[in-house]
This record gives sequence, C-alpha cells and structure tokens, in this order.
Amino acid sequence: MIDASFTFPVENQIKLVEERMLSQADGHHSAVVAALHHLLSSGGKRIRVVVTLLTGKMLGADSGKLITLAAAIESLHTATLVHDDLIDGALIRRGIPTLNAQWSPAATVLTGDFIFSKAAKLAADTGSVDVMRIFAETLATIVNGEITQLFSSRWVANREDYYSRIYAKTASLFEASTRTAAILSNASEDVSLAVKRYGYEIGMAFQIIDDIFDFTSEQTTMGKPVASDLRQGLITLPVLYYLENQPDDLDMKNILESNFCDEDCLGRLLKSIRESGAIEMSFKEAQKSVHSGLDALMKLPDSQERKALEELACYIIDREI
Amino acid sequence: MIDASFTFPVENQIKLVEERMLSQADGHHSAVVAALHHLLSSGGKRIRVVVTLLTGKMLGADSGKLITLAAAIESLHTATLVHDDLIDGALIRRGIPTLNAQWSPAATVLTGDFIFSKAAKLAADTGSVDVMRIFAETLATIVNGEITQLFSSRWVANREDYYSRIYAKTASLFEASTRTAAILSNASEDVSLAVKRYGYEIGMAFQIIDDIFDFTSEQTTMGKPVASDLRQGLITLPVLYYLENQPDDLDMKNILESNFCDEDCLGRLLKSIRESGAIEMSFKEAQKSVHSGLDALMKLPDSQERKALEELACYIIDREI
Repeated sequence: MIDASFTFPVENQIKLVEERMLSQADGHHSAVVAALHHLLSSGGKRIRVVVTLLTGKMLGADSGKLITLAAAIESLHTATLVHDDLIDGALIRRGIPTLNAQWSPAATVLTGDFIFSKAAKLAADTGSVDVMRIFAETLATIVNGEITQLFSSRWVANREDYYSRIYAKTASLFEASTRTAAILSNASEDVSLAVKRYGYEIGMAFQIIDDIFDFTSEQTTMGKPVASDLRQGLITLPVLYYLENQPDDLDMKNILESNFCDEDCLGRLLKSIRESGAIEMSFKEAQKSVHSGLDALMKLPDSQERKALEELACYIIDREI
Repeated sequence: MIDASFTFPVENQIKLVEERMLSQADGHHSAVVAALHHLLSSGGKRIRVVVTLLTGKMLGADSGKLITLAAAIESLHTATLVHDDLIDGALIRRGIPTLNAQWSPAATVLTGDFIFSKAAKLAADTGSVDVMRIFAETLATIVNGEITQLFSSRWVANREDYYSRIYAKTASLFEASTRTAAILSNASEDVSLAVKRYGYEIGMAFQIIDDIFDFTSEQTTMGKPVASDLRQGLITLPVLYYLENQPDDLDMKNILESNFCDEDCLGRLLKSIRESGAIEMSFKEAQKSVHSGLDALMKLPDSQERKALEELACYIIDREI
C-alpha cells in the first residue's frame, strides 16, 4: 500500500477492499485461497483501488458498492498480472516470487481464470449493467493490447503504436476506475467525462513513468534488467524522443534495419539515450498528461477527496520506483 | 452443429448466435479474428446454444437478448476449452488441431482471456445483472473444479467427488443456460426451478455419457486414447460401479495402494470393466438423470420448444460420439 497522505480519506475502505478480495476464495479449493493470500500479500500499490475509492467518495457513491467496485477493479488487475507473469516467464514481481515461479503453468492459468471470474462476480455485485459492460470492454482492451504486442514486429518506432499500447496496458483500467465510480454515483455526463479524462491522463502518465524507470533504474531495483523493453525490441517514449532528435544514430539505424541489438550496442544506446535529454522530454510529457488530468478535475467542486486526487496525480510523476 | 430434428425451432437463431460470436473479434487484432474463426469452424455441437435458445423461446424471452445470451454461454464454453486444451496439452479437438497445437502458450492463454472478456461483454449486453452474476459464478465453479482436479490426489474412488467434478465441469453450464434463459423470460420461480433442474440433470447425464465413451470408444474416434481418464488416475462412474461390485479386484487394489497402473494392468482392467456390467449401470444412471430432467420439464405447458427439449434430453443419452 502507498504510504502517502492522499490515501487518508479512504484508509479504512482500502482494508475493506482487500478483505473483500480475499473473501472471494471462501468455499473454494485451498490452493485458490493460498494463491489469493500470496498475491495480496505481495504488497501492490493499490493505486487503482485508491483512485476508485476517492473518485466514488468525491461523487457520493454508496460506500458498500464502491468497495465492491474497487475490489472488482483490483481483482481484474491482479488476474491480468498473473497471466502476464506466466507469459513473460517473470519469476519476481515487487520483490516477491510470482505464482508461476512456484506453480505449474496449468495452475497459474487457472488461478488467473479464477480471479477473472471473481472480478466479474464483484462487478456484477455492484448491480450496474453499465459497470459490467465497461468492465468487460476494458478486459478486452487490455488483452487485445497484449495480443497485438505478442504478434507485432519488434523495433517499431511509431508514436501511435506506443500510445495505443500504453492505453491498453495501463490507462484503460485507470479510466475504467473513474468512469465506473462515476456511474455508481449517478454523476452527470459532464462530471463523468471530467473524471474519465482524469483517469485516462494519470494512467497514461503512470505508464510513461514506468517506461522511464526502465531506463533510469538499476538492475536490482525492479527485479528485471535495465532497459528490459529495449532488450525485447519494444520501443517506448524515451527511445521515440531519442530517435526524433538523433535520426542518424548509427546503432538505432542498424537495429531498425537488422531487428537485432547485441549487448555492446545496447550498452552504447542506453548511455546515449540517458545523456540525450530524451528521458527529461518523456518526463515532461508525463507531467503534461498529469496537468491535463488536473485541469479536468478542477471542473469539479473542491473537496477533501478532490485534493487527494490532485496529490495522487502529482505522486504518479514524483514517485520513486 | 447437431443434425437433429430438435434444433428445428431455433435453426435460424443458431446461425445468428455464431455470427454474433464471430463479430466479437471486430476491430481487434487479426490474430484474434483468425483464432475465433478457427475455433468456431471446428464444428462444436453447439448443444448449449440449442438448450439456451429452446428454453428462452419456450418461455417467451426477447429474441435479440436470447441470441446475445446464447452467444455469451457458448463463448464462455469456448474460452474454457481453449485453456483446457493448453493445460492438457491436447493437440486435437473434434478432429481439428487445437489452438495450442499451432500457437505459443502465450498466444493461447491470451486468446482464451480475450474470449472470456467477450463472453462477459455479451452477458452484460443482455442487460440483466442476475444473468451476469450467474455467469460469473458459473465460471468460478468451472475453474474451481479444474483447480481441485489439478491439486487432488489421483485414484480417488469417491462418488461425492465424482458428482462434484462433473457438476463443475459440465452440468453447471447447462444449468446456467436454462436458468439465465428463464431470467430473460421473467419466468416465475416455479418455472425457473423446473428449467434449472432440467439443465442440471441433462448436464450430469451428458458428462456421464462422455465418461462412458472414454471406455467404449476406440482410440481414433475421440482423438485421445481409450480410457484416457483412467490413464490419468481419474476415476469416473464406470470405475466406481466396477469397484462397488468387485471390491476385491486385484488390479484395482494394487492401483489404489500404489497409485500406479502400467499398460498391462490398464488393459486387463479395461477388459474387466467393459465386461462387468459397469458401463450399463452407468448408462442407466445417465438415463435416470435424463428422466428426472424430463419430469421437471413436464411441469411446463406443452409447446413445440418443450417437445424439442424432450428430444434433446433423449439425444444426450442416445448420441454417438
């Protein structure tokens, strides 16, 4: 959980959301119970939970339904992570062994499926068909994004592709969090659009910052090698800026032609990107997103929750890994 | 599709359901489109579609919503098959290569997830929160059943375990088909309970017959070896009857003690089971289930659709592989 002042207005509810998620395993096989406990104890930031709770509380949603919704959103997120880690063969997430590091692929696939089913159940428990629909559409967006990434050529330097990818991967669920919280609050269309925009913008910023961390962090911090995206031929915002400013970089030219980059080339490129100002430009773009999100938020009346959402938006760009 | 007279009242709708399922890939990655086409062209029996359509039509459900519901049910079924085949490493289903025979595990997991998301979307599109809830609960039941099977000891001879397993694996979705069709029809509680019972009973019978086929079919027919359940240490109804009547069978005694059965032992056992009358007793039990289902159905007024559902129930026990 995040140790930040903006969680204060919903501190108690966050615990209730976690309890609600855990209780989904009740009456099911002990392996499922163990898996859910393991996943929830791995200390995710619960940032989607906080966004959902703050938005709903700000707009006057029923507190019980809001907790159900936040549990649905976080469960959906957790289920996608379980399948992602399996697909990537990731053995560590947030410093804790992933499910697939300990279990067979079969058990990991099924545990992900189980959490999907419980996410859908929780979404249905909000009693809103619109929430359900957005929920299902968001899952389709996330998975379609992953399939697209899986089947796409590597080393494609294209801004449009990049924005679609980070929308599918991250911003779509932030957007769904605020949209569905607005639905539960019977918010007006203007208000719904404002919080939807806020969710979208902070989601885009969140992923841009994650992509920056991939260049700035050291190997051990994130549990994966530095420039892991680049190693996979996945071009993110810092590389796009670098390419736009250094279109004649020989290493990049070679890579885009040969679709290959050895360790020496990667080392040189990493150094060049870090020194080029591309990281700073990417950071400015994330800041711009956050400011757009804040502009949308400012259309709503001042409140303790709105203030917390402002702080949360700033935290997204100021956070440490 | 089934070539049987009971599909007649809903013939046109079955095609619309298939079109509806295919259209779920619209606007998504071409790999997803290809996968859905492949899965739907593999000629499943669509028996759940027919059950859903006939029940809803009999009870007066809105035709458009009913098609959406049937597409949701069949999509859920398809998604679980995609993940099942991956987990079992099955390369052939219904005589056609499975998705995982051609694709990587990653692509197969994600395609299953995509179809889950579209199943949830279709369920939401029925506009009924109750449908959504049953839908999500059924998915949880199915997946929990698979997890239980995965983590359970082999060679467990226990009727209760067997019935739970076949309920989770098969009957739960048949039951959900008729229950949700009744919900869309605003059926009375009595009527809902009657069709729920019908769905449950024909679902149980369907799986018992499948388990019988595993003993009576030849290797090539089902694309898997004869007695494939027994080979995996999975005890089904014919074995349970055999054990109850021949508690002193030496091969079975050895197996239950050692949890192991070599090819010779398997051959002897298969012959013994086939000759023991256990197959016939299992078949009678399936018949009994179907009769209970028909009893429940008889509480409803006579109609073309009710007649078709009667025929369908009989088809389940009389069908060939």
